[in-house]
Amino acid sequence: MSYVEPMLETHPWPGHVDRGTLAECIETCFECAQSCTSCGDACLSEEAVAELRKCIRLNLDCADVCDATGRVLTRQTAYDAPTSKALLETCHEACATCAEECERHADVHEHCRVCAEACRRCERVCDELLAKMR
Amino acid sequence: MSYVEPMLETHPWPGHVDRGTLAECIETCFECAQSCTSCGDACLSEEAVAELRKCIRLNLDCADVCDATGRVLTRQTAYDAPTSKALLETCHEACATCAEECERHADVHEHCRVCAEACRRCERVCDELLAKMR
Amino acid sequence: MSYVEPMLETHPWPGHVDRGTLAECIETCFECAQSCTSCGDACLSEEAVAELRKCIRLNLDCADVCDATGRVLTRQTAYDAPTSKALLETCHEACATCAEECERHADVHEHCRVCAEACRRCERVCDELLAKMR
Amino acid sequence: MSYVEPMLETHPWPGHVDRGTLAECIETCFECAQSCTSCGDACLSEEAVAELRKCIRLNLDCADVCDATGRVLTRQTAYDAPTSKALLETCHEACATCAEECERHADVHEHCRVCAEACRRCERVCDELLAKMR
Repeated sequence: MSYVEPMLETHPWPGHVDRGTLAECIETCFECAQSCTSCGDACLSEEAVAELRKCIRLNLDCADVCDATGRVLTRQTAYDAPTSKALLETCHEACATCAEECERHADVHEHCRVCAEACRRCERVCDELLAKMR
Repeated sequence: MSYVEPMLETHPWPGHVDRGTLAECIETCFECAQSCTSCGDACLSEEAVAELRKCIRLNLDCADVCDATGRVLTRQTAYDAPTSKALLETCHEACATCAEECERHADVHEHCRVCAEACRRCERVCDELLAKMR
Repeated sequence: MSYVEPMLETHPWPGHVDRGTLAECIETCFECAQSCTSCGDACLSEEAVAELRKCIRLNLDCADVCDATGRVLTRQTAYDAPTSKALLETCHEACATCAEECERHADVHEHCRVCAEACRRCERVCDELLAKMR
Repeated sequence: MSYVEPMLETHPWPGHVDRGTLAECIETCFECAQSCTSCGDACLSEEAVAELRKCIRLNLDCADVCDATGRVLTRQTAYDAPTSKALLETCHEACATCAEECERHADVHEHCRVCAEACRRCERVCDELLAKMR
């Protein structure tokens, strides 16, 4: 029961980019942030935690970057394109890096498989929004 | 397409509380954080922004508290009940305070009406999780 | 070169609590958040990472709670006492819990010793601000 | 009483970049995040809030980006250069944009003058760290 789209619909500031793509990107960023927080914590509980250090670190980074991206994209007032674009590109980078590492453990750890999916989806949706912004 | 439940299912740490209620609370916290970030920004764009100062401030507080609560609840490793409970009670308080203010503007600003709904829902779900924790 | 105090001095909203204590608490919350983020990451690099799971988890929680507390306390507009108090009590709890765990590793890991100090300081300063608020 | 440098000194992971510059950048990011949160809130209290909408929005964005940057830079385990660099560039952009807007109000609002200083400092320190990373 996401409020992203109804909130965007009632915003008094005129839209500056395709609303459906924007709403999907905001939602996906927050979902990816949550998934990465969860995967980092699940890795920490694994017996093989020592082999999952890099995965945990990238999970934490990706969660922080996705959270900041979701917050900035949510704001419509006095929209500033350069910051949004730079942040979307950083988010794409963080998601791709985290997905790659999660995929290396996806056969053994189901949480890494699910999280890689969340990251790949977020990476793709950031690209779609970037394409609409150009 | 939330990953909260599939991520909790694959977590190696044994569950310490009813999983369905926990998953709903995590999801609701992040949805409320997003909704409050959006409402604060929509209020900022309104002509009557000067009358919405309190609403914006409470929106920002509620977003920060819900975000922290969603992150802490997501973690299962070495679960610590007292911090989770104190944070859930704080989240309940922040949501109730923000909802009350949003409701005062709900007739005039649709984003305040939707956001009040998100806050009331989060307030209720925090209570439900607290009840399961006792 | 902190900006906490000069920013509070120039704020148009009339102060609602002793400014010196408030400024110290805001600063301490953000310093503790940083220290906990750093300690969690240092623990993750340790050979004995498996024995530091609880410490890492509590570090991450404490960082999130301190960050939210620092943000909420920074805001002066339309000050709402109940949320601030509840959050300060939660922050006190998170800091005390994290400090206790860090102290258990302080003899072996210097980062845990420094971080325990940051947490104990934040725990004390939250109490001092709470006392001024009553 | 910052813990950034003592925490970096005790970190088991071998340093990948000049420690003094890194410590200064981490500290400056968190100070800028706090200053922007404070300036956004002070603007919200001003009589002329309607003319400060853009400033508030950019303050909030800059706070979120600086906070994420400070967190990511704090982590040393399994350092990933591309994400750090992209985030530092985004942080530079957000700080420059916010500083420019704050400077437009610096004559009238002292909090904007102080915050512009914090943003310009953070912009410069991000550049210095980026230069050391190349």
